[in-house]
Amino acid sequence: MSNTNTEIAIVGCGPAGLSAAINVKARNKTSLIFGTEVCSPKLQKAPHLHNYLGFFDITGEEFQKRALKQVEHYGIEMLRSSVDSIFPLGDGFDLMVKDEVYHAKVVILATGVTQGHVLPGENEFLGKGVSYCASCDAPIFKNKTTAIIAEVKEAEQEAELLSELCEHVYYIPQYREEIQVNDGVEIIQDKPKAILGKNQVTHLQLKNQRIECDGIFIIRETVPASQLVQGLETSGSAIKVNRDMSTNIEGLYAAGDITGWPYQLGKAVGEGQVAALNAVDFISQQKKND
Amino acid sequence: MSNTNTEIAIVGCGPAGLSAAINVKARNKTSLIFGTEVCSPKLQKAPHLHNYLGFFDITGEEFQKRALKQVEHYGIEMLRSSVDSIFPLGDGFDLMVKDEVYHAKVVILATGVTQGHVLPGENEFLGKGVSYCASCDAPIFKNKTTAIIAEVKEAEQEAELLSELCEHVYYIPQYREEIQVNDGVEIIQDKPKAILGKNQVTHLQLKNQRIECDGIFIIRETVPASQLVQGLETSGSAIKVNRDMSTNIEGLYAAGDITGWPYQLGKAVGEGQVAALNAVDFISQQKKND
Repeated sequence: MSNTNTEIAIVGCGPAGLSAAINVKARNKTSLIFGTEVCSPKLQKAPHLHNYLGFFDITGEEFQKRALKQVEHYGIEMLRSSVDSIFPLGDGFDLMVKDEVYHAKVVILATGVTQGHVLPGENEFLGKGVSYCASCDAPIFKNKTTAIIAEVKEAEQEAELLSELCEHVYYIPQYREEIQVNDGVEIIQDKPKAILGKNQVTHLQLKNQRIECDGIFIIRETVPASQLVQGLETSGSAIKVNRDMSTNIEGLYAAGDITGWPYQLGKAVGEGQVAALNAVDFISQQKKND
Repeated sequence: MSNTNTEIAIVGCGPAGLSAAINVKARNKTSLIFGTEVCSPKLQKAPHLHNYLGFFDITGEEFQKRALKQVEHYGIEMLRSSVDSIFPLGDGFDLMVKDEVYHAKVVILATGVTQGHVLPGENEFLGKGVSYCASCDAPIFKNKTTAIIAEVKEAEQEAELLSELCEHVYYIPQYREEIQVNDGVEIIQDKPKAILGKNQVTHLQLKNQRIECDGIFIIRETVPASQLVQGLETSGSAIKVNRDMSTNIEGLYAAGDITGWPYQLGKAVGEGQVAALNAVDFISQQKKND
């Protein structure tokens, strides 16, 4: 059985979590990462990264491998186990992992955007026409036809970008707020049912019609992370954080997609770093006050 | 003469500025970077990066070259000119560059930490024993003797890390707040005068004594950026920013070291990205409201 005590528990092994881990290490402190089997499904399927400084023309999968290798190279411990719940104890935290209890002085939450309902065909066509990020993949669909399944108003920004590049853009809003998109964008009020195609996406099946398209962008809301920790303050669906990535619970930090839009690699890496350095400071201050 | 109008002016070509530029490009908008001859003296001299996700064992200089190549590859325009002052016009900004005036709809400030007084020998021994970042360079000085010239209280964190790795650590505080460092750290109340050595640092000359050491860490305060833009709200020496990297002046964003501690590559890249994506949004919103 592995050690169930750690200074810093990092929940999530996407870019925010891994960035936090290497920065804890840079400060000569120990962390334990709780990761899922696929660290970041979104990154895993990204055809290429081009807006993370230092890299262009690398796939998301390649980047993820590099990042995991870096963590391994530094000898940072990672468990491939999901954390079921986290209990703040006033002086540290208990993390429940199935029937085991882990204890940490501080916790960094970096579980990313949890997927809600998945459409039939969505997983199958990920990277084959299905994308979660227009800023990342828009150029692939230049002069083609795309559809945006917009569960949140933020998707309007993606519509704007796509409308500049694509021959035609369908916009299928699933939210109640006022819809503000460019003139060129065709709004369809309908319910997505399935993604269809052979090797690549060819159609989006809606409840009342079927539309032909080369690409489908699905822009979803994050699922409330407050489910993991009781009393955690959120702003909409994101965890509310201060500039130092601390939350309303002392000793609990958050980083990456879980803290809200923009859902991007660079932001996640930066926030992981800031969370880690402040978490290390927090521990040091506690020691000085003891 | 180059075009003096741009949608987004980015002031500074360090990692925050370049990250902002590639993210503006990812959103299909145009930016103009105002850069200095050496984009980031600190990065330029870093012996190696190891806490930026995706890279280890690359020098700061190599990274900077890669980043500049990436910007060039995307066809982003960069002027090697310093901006002397920035005037908010209510509807956009005028940027003064010597006797030329540039106009931008939004501005992203990413000028980094401006160096104040430079010690004799400091530039000469940069990367040869002189460092600005313990988290980055501490391992080089394992079991050796180091001195910290601490102009700000934040340097205590660097002292803590070094005290765990080094044989001996001298701490030379230049600030008025209470000093809280580990027991192992030797505090010297004196004034740094010069850095001495041959190929590598060998001594730190203080006003009243000369100490032998292998490495010297200089931890300085940022210079108020409010000099560049009248009325810009600051917090201590850093620009005050919201979570979306906006400042108190509408249409003015800031990113990187200029927004405060931690002075780190990952944070700068993340903030540059967030500033850029929000700046693009700001322009889109303005267009919709016109």
